[in-house]
Amino acid sequence: MVTDELAAEETPRGAAPRATLAEIAALARVSIATVSKVLNGRDGVSEETRSRVDALLGENNYSRRTRTHLPAPLIEVLCFDIAHAFSASMIAAIERAVRAQGMGLVVTGADADHRPAASWADDVIHRQPRGVILLMSELSARVATRLRSRELPIVTINPFGAPPKETTTIGSADWDGGYAATRHLLELGHRRIAIIKGPEGMRASAQRLAGYRTAMETAGIRVRPEWIKPGRFIHSDGYEQGRALLELPDRPTAIFGSSDLQALGVYDAARAMGLDVPGDVSVVGYGDLSNAESASPPMTTVHVPIDAMAEQALSLVTAQREQLDLPARRVDLPVSLKVRASTAPPAAAP
Amino acid sequence: MVTDELAAEETPRGAAPRATLAEIAALARVSIATVSKVLNGRDGVSEETRSRVDALLGENNYSRRTRTHLPAPLIEVLCFDIAHAFSASMIAAIERAVRAQGMGLVVTGADADHRPAASWADDVIHRQPRGVILLMSELSARVATRLRSRELPIVTINPFGAPPKETTTIGSADWDGGYAATRHLLELGHRRIAIIKGPEGMRASAQRLAGYRTAMETAGIRVRPEWIKPGRFIHSDGYEQGRALLELPDRPTAIFGSSDLQALGVYDAARAMGLDVPGDVSVVGYGDLSNAESASPPMTTVHVPIDAMAEQALSLVTAQREQLDLPARRVDLPVSLKVRASTAPPAAAP
Repeated sequence: MVTDELAAEETPRGAAPRATLAEIAALARVSIATVSKVLNGRDGVSEETRSRVDALLGENNYSRRTRTHLPAPLIEVLCFDIAHAFSASMIAAIERAVRAQGMGLVVTGADADHRPAASWADDVIHRQPRGVILLMSELSARVATRLRSRELPIVTINPFGAPPKETTTIGSADWDGGYAATRHLLELGHRRIAIIKGPEGMRASAQRLAGYRTAMETAGIRVRPEWIKPGRFIHSDGYEQGRALLELPDRPTAIFGSSDLQALGVYDAARAMGLDVPGDVSVVGYGDLSNAESASPPMTTVHVPIDAMAEQALSLVTAQREQLDLPARRVDLPVSLKVRASTAPPAAAP
Repeated sequence: MVTDELAAEETPRGAAPRATLAEIAALARVSIATVSKVLNGRDGVSEETRSRVDALLGENNYSRRTRTHLPAPLIEVLCFDIAHAFSASMIAAIERAVRAQGMGLVVTGADADHRPAASWADDVIHRQPRGVILLMSELSARVATRLRSRELPIVTINPFGAPPKETTTIGSADWDGGYAATRHLLELGHRRIAIIKGPEGMRASAQRLAGYRTAMETAGIRVRPEWIKPGRFIHSDGYEQGRALLELPDRPTAIFGSSDLQALGVYDAARAMGLDVPGDVSVVGYGDLSNAESASPPMTTVHVPIDAMAEQALSLVTAQREQLDLPARRVDLPVSLKVRASTAPPAAAP
C-alpha cells in the first residue's frame, strides 16, 4: 500500500506529465515521440519497443486516464434513508463496484416522499455523470424524461410502485424468497405462519407477500387475515406487529419478517413476552445483512445478493449508455435461504 | 413537493434560459435587457422594477446558481467501512448538511488500512471539490501535503492515531463520555465495572478508556487488568469479550462497551449465559445510533451528536477555504448520557 502510494507520488500524476514522459523515454532508451506513440496507440513502433515502454508506463502507475487528465467519470446514486442498514450496505457495494471501474460516486439523499429535491436534476445534468442509480427512491415522469433526453441512463434498485416501462430495474427474486422462507417453515411442520409486510407500494414487499401466499395455498392452508400485518423495514414495526401477532388467542408458531430489522423486532417482542426464539416462535428475516448472522440466535433469513445487484446495476448503466435504445429490463437476481438458529419445528402439533 | 417540482420544470432550468428570461420579461412587462440587469445585479433599474422582477424570478425558482449554470460545488468524503452503522449515520448527516448548502457529495471507500487507493488523490484534484472530510480514515503525509498544496481543506472526523498538527479534527468529547458512563454506573452502586475498548490507535478509543479510568480512580477503585478487554466497534467483539468478562470467577456487575454494537454483543453474551440485562449485568453503550433506543432493553448509552459533528466538519472546511492559513483545530462537541433501561443497581452488594 505504502509502496503503491509512493510510486504514484514519484510519478507526479496529473501534475507535470511531460517530465514523466521524458523519464519513461530515458528509462526505455527511446525518444519522447516513441513513448507518446505507445501512449496514444499509434503505429510506427516495433512490438518489442511497445511492450518495453508499456511495461515501464505500467510500473510507474502511468495509466491512460491519468495520462490524458480525464477526470474519473461519475455515477450518481439517489437514495432514501442513507443510514438504513440496507441502503448503507448497498451504497457500500455500489461504491466498491464504481471504484473498481475507476469511477467516482456522488450520493444524494431523497426527501420523505422518496423523490429528489427540485434542484437535483439540474445538479446531475451539470455533473455529466455516466448514469443514475435510484435506491429506495423514484423520479417524477418529467424528471426522468428530462434526464433521458440528456442521454443519462437510469437504473432503479428495488423500485417503488409499478415502475414505468422505460425504467430498467434491478431487484432480487422476491417472490422466490417469500416462497422459500415460507416453504422452510412449512417443512418444519408450522401451519400458523404469519407475515409482516414491507412498505406499501414497493414491488419487493408485494412479491415477498405473494411468495408467502403461494406457499401457504400450495400447502392447503387458508391464510387468516390477522396473520398479515403491515410494516416498514424498521425494528419498531417488527416489534409492534410481532407483539400483536404473539398476543393473538391462537398465536402463530412462526413469523416471517419482510426484513432482518423487522425480524429483530420480533425477537425482542417475543423476549418481552417471555417467549423463546425458536422454542416458542420461529422467526425468518429477509436481507441477510450483517446483523442477521450476529443476532442471538443467529437468524434464518433470505440472502439478498447485495454485491451482485450493485455490479448488475452498474453494468446495466454502462449497457444503456453504449446503446441508448436498449429496451428496459426487469433483472432479478436469485436469492437463497440461509438456515440458521431462529427456526425450529413447532413445540406442539398445530 | 410535487408543486415545487412542477415549478422547477416549468422553468426549464439549465436548458433554455433565454426563453424563460423572455417569459419573466413578459410577466413583469419590462424588456429582456431589464431582466438581465436585475439578474446580474447591474444598475439602471428602478427599485420598484427590480423588486418586481426579483419576485418573479424567485416565484419561478430561477435562482442565481441555475441562472449562471454553475455546477453545484462538491465535498469529498473518504470513509472506511461505509456500511458500518456509525459511518452510514455520519454519511447521511454529512449529505444532509452538504445538500442544505447547495452542494453535492462524493463518497469514496478507504482500503483495509484506512487509506485511499493510489488514484484517489488524482481523482479528487480533478474534481476540484470545496474540501475533503476523512471519516474513520487517514491520508499519508505525502497525499495530505499534495492536497493542501492545491488549497484543498481537509477535516478529519474521529481521527486515527495522533493526527498531524496540520490536521483539523472533529470529534466528540470522548473522555467526558467515558467518564459520564462510568460515573453513572458508580452512582448506581457498581464497583466491578469492566470496559471493552475501541480499535487500537484511535483517539476516541483511548479517550473513552481514559475517562473510565479517571472515574474509577476518583472513586478509589483499583481497575483490575482483566476488566479491560480489547475490541473493535463490532457486535462479535462485544459478544466474545462480553462472554469472557461474564465468565470471570468474580464477574463484573457492569460492562461499558465503547460502541452500541459492542454493547448489543454484550446483551447477547449475557442472554446466551442465561443472565439478565440489567438484572444480572448492567450494560452501557456508546454512540446512541438508531439501534440503541430500539434495543431490548432500550440501551443506556452516550449520545454522540452526529448531525452537529457533520455540520461542524462542513463549516470548518468552509472556514479553511476562506482563510487558507487558518490554524488547525481540535474541535470536540459535547456528549450526553442517555439513561435508558439497560442499567440498574447491582443485584447484591459488591
